[in-house]
Amino acid sequence: VALYLLKNRERVLKPLILSLQEAQHCIFPCSLCGFLDETDPCLFCKDEKRDQSLLCVVSDVADLWAIEKTRRYQGLYHVLGGNLSLTEGIAPKDLRMASLLKRLQGKEAPREVILALSPTVEGQTTAHYVRQEIQALGGSAEVSTLAQGIPLGGELDYLDEGTLSLAVVKRKHFEAS
Amino acid sequence: VALYLLKNRERVLKPLILSLQEAQHCIFPCSLCGFLDETDPCLFCKDEKRDQSLLCVVSDVADLWAIEKTRRYQGLYHVLGGNLSLTEGIAPKDLRMASLLKRLQGKEAPREVILALSPTVEGQTTAHYVRQEIQALGGSAEVSTLAQGIPLGGELDYLDEGTLSLAVVKRKHFEAS
Repeated sequence: VALYLLKNRERVLKPLILSLQEAQHCIFPCSLCGFLDETDPCLFCKDEKRDQSLLCVVSDVADLWAIEKTRRYQGLYHVLGGNLSLTEGIAPKDLRMASLLKRLQGKEAPREVILALSPTVEGQTTAHYVRQEIQALGGSAEVSTLAQGIPLGGELDYLDEGTLSLAVVKRKHFEAS
Repeated sequence: VALYLLKNRERVLKPLILSLQEAQHCIFPCSLCGFLDETDPCLFCKDEKRDQSLLCVVSDVADLWAIEKTRRYQGLYHVLGGNLSLTEGIAPKDLRMASLLKRLQGKEAPREVILALSPTVEGQTTAHYVRQEIQALGGSAEVSTLAQGIPLGGELDYLDEGTLSLAVVKRKHFEAS
């Protein structure tokens, strides 16, 4: 890579330096939600067409992008900036919690907080912590979490036992018709 | 493989022939549920410790094994013998439907039928068909299906959009505590 850059000094290296400089000076976390954007508030927070009553809590911007790509979510976001982790040394104070709790207290507080955190030990620990903090506030916001179960496509006998077991236990009942 | 078998005629080939002969003569589908076993009724159908009020419908024996391995399900099974498929030419008459409907009509009919079919187009088409047939019976059995959503482990931003979208739409609400 280094040799390629030096060989294509004008065509590749210079535009790369300019782009990185631009990123350094122009892209910052939104002071409301933590999304990285050129404006503050970011494009999501200032978009009045989005459903202001829904707030989706994600651990990082990549997860926000993943949810945004589904095009099925039209509410607001809040980026925590990571998951609680002993091994990586991420403690509650390292998460964007104060601003989240503040958003739930104003008079424009969302009606529902969706915890869209990864189905890993760290993600679920973080979800538990965030949920406790929100309930300790005593506000009126409802808390929900992503549906867990078997993913779309694929075959049952290739699924891990944990997921299949959970899908059996949390099976969905059809309403009689 | 052929050369290996011929080279180890006594040690490998002969036991293999014996095993295959044994399988040919001793292993048959259970006349009740379609599971492959040496006895009829099979070990599941004749096990009175299993919950007789739950009936889990799977498309084949591999899926039954997958669910059995989770150790979270203690009810009975019914193996359809495939999924409806235009490309593979599997029609309703090729599925073990008559015996399923018969099991739902006796006085020992299960209380709940769990459709544990694959989250593929074929699997869900089959699930829809089976559900309609069961409801057309007009019995009292409740019909349920495996929970769908994000699988355990893994990261949100690696999930396919369809699964993530479904997990957002079918999100689970915590009860206020």
